[in-house]
Amino acid sequence: MQIIDGNAIAESIIEELTQEVGALTGKQPVVAFIRVGDDPASVSYVRKKEKTAERIGIESRLHLFPEDVSKEKLFDLIDALNADPDVNGILIQAPLPGHIDETETFNRVDPAKDVDGFNTVNIGKLCQEDASGFIACTPAGIVELIQRSGIDTEGKHVVVLGRSQIVGKPAALLMMRKAIPGNATVTICHSRTRNLPEVTRQADILIAAIGRPNFVTPDMVKQGVAVIDVGINRVEDASKKRGYRLVGDVEFEGVAAKASHITPVPGGVGPMTVAMLMHNTLRAFKAAQ
Amino acid sequence: MQIIDGNAIAESIIEELTQEVGALTGKQPVVAFIRVGDDPASVSYVRKKEKTAERIGIESRLHLFPEDVSKEKLFDLIDALNADPDVNGILIQAPLPGHIDETETFNRVDPAKDVDGFNTVNIGKLCQEDASGFIACTPAGIVELIQRSGIDTEGKHVVVLGRSQIVGKPAALLMMRKAIPGNATVTICHSRTRNLPEVTRQADILIAAIGRPNFVTPDMVKQGVAVIDVGINRVEDASKKRGYRLVGDVEFEGVAAKASHITPVPGGVGPMTVAMLMHNTLRAFKAAQ
Repeated sequence: MQIIDGNAIAESIIEELTQEVGALTGKQPVVAFIRVGDDPASVSYVRKKEKTAERIGIESRLHLFPEDVSKEKLFDLIDALNADPDVNGILIQAPLPGHIDETETFNRVDPAKDVDGFNTVNIGKLCQEDASGFIACTPAGIVELIQRSGIDTEGKHVVVLGRSQIVGKPAALLMMRKAIPGNATVTICHSRTRNLPEVTRQADILIAAIGRPNFVTPDMVKQGVAVIDVGINRVEDASKKRGYRLVGDVEFEGVAAKASHITPVPGGVGPMTVAMLMHNTLRAFKAAQ
Repeated sequence: MQIIDGNAIAESIIEELTQEVGALTGKQPVVAFIRVGDDPASVSYVRKKEKTAERIGIESRLHLFPEDVSKEKLFDLIDALNADPDVNGILIQAPLPGHIDETETFNRVDPAKDVDGFNTVNIGKLCQEDASGFIACTPAGIVELIQRSGIDTEGKHVVVLGRSQIVGKPAALLMMRKAIPGNATVTICHSRTRNLPEVTRQADILIAAIGRPNFVTPDMVKQGVAVIDVGINRVEDASKKRGYRLVGDVEFEGVAAKASHITPVPGGVGPMTVAMLMHNTLRAFKAAQ
């Protein structure tokens, strides 16, 4: 059984990107971050992205707005960044305050600078298998984990637990692509699925993205399954200083005993998202030259 | 066992649309057809669409180009139709000649007039479950056939045979939507799927769209399955004047004996596409008022 080390794989990707950026002569890639309000999690995520960009040699430009910023003001900045030839990628940190529609905001970003892959055009391109689009960082990270762990997907049965727009559906579309990784038979399950264990037990590869702590139990998987656990759930834990610990959607110990590969939580899919954001930014930069 | 009568269902939709258009006061809906070259199948398809539009009371405007039209000339017309407030829908009859890229052409059409649902934005909206988008006519027709035949999809296992951008993937996305019809567990199979009969035998609803004549045999389905056969294949038949007959992807006689519902070929999915095109055109018209 192999525990898939997301930190190590993310680190390899960051090193590859650092070398590639280091070899650039002339212009350097630039990513713009937009943060609205001071949600502590958002502050921490954006800081992490800034630090990773700095390590790689990608310039980041942080734009801050107060929680009550008007949509017009936010969109004016997005328009200006879209028009700025020096800016290659634009990331708007979610969640946005309730008075600003997220889908509309993500769609305001030029698809060619949408390094988060949330623009409708990039989602459509994923469905059309048009490689010019950007793939959202979490599903892109899942694919990298699978590929770099040597897990074969061709003709395998991938079961995706969860049908979200951000993870489940794009992961399913990627796994069914006419490509490597891809070429898998794909089943998408969700809250309405009947006899779920019967379905998940067919999985050669199980991608769990339903946001329910320890939902996947050992009886729900077959011997030799490869498990990608996308869940990041807080469960109360009085023994921890902060009062909780993070667990995935998969009951790790029991499922690991049957699995060929499994991602831990934390340290599995999580670290990949920032690496894939940087990967997308460098791609946007290269496409713009 | 119920044979799903696509002609009758398409006819009901056309009658509903005719009533709705008949009740309009003021402007009438307008659809523009663009045909390049004189491919006999294209001529016949466009004529059928014109006739149906006329029946409903939708004005159609036919634009013809020679086979060797330049991309610029074609795109100039698309731009003009996009800008014309009287034109609600634009349909470019495929296939286009080899020197004109189809994806690029379909993406030239304003998504709000893309009644064929082929624009990347409309495919992305389908994935995002954004109801403002247009769904391509064949998958939209499949959904109507299922709904109007009283086939329940909630929690059922839908197996889609084929992963094409035009049918398999959008049909799968529609069946997994948080909606009725939808809320199904969905498996997408294709040429690389192993143990295909094992997978298809799990289907409560089987959507066959692989373009291989009589591919689905009775041993591949379970008793009580509902079958939507999207295939339209020519097989040689010396007894026919034209030398061939049309068959679906499903071996009709044998599979029908086990099925609860089945679409015939011809007369199943086929007639639905023109009806759904008209449905989309009326929706585009209403959205533009």
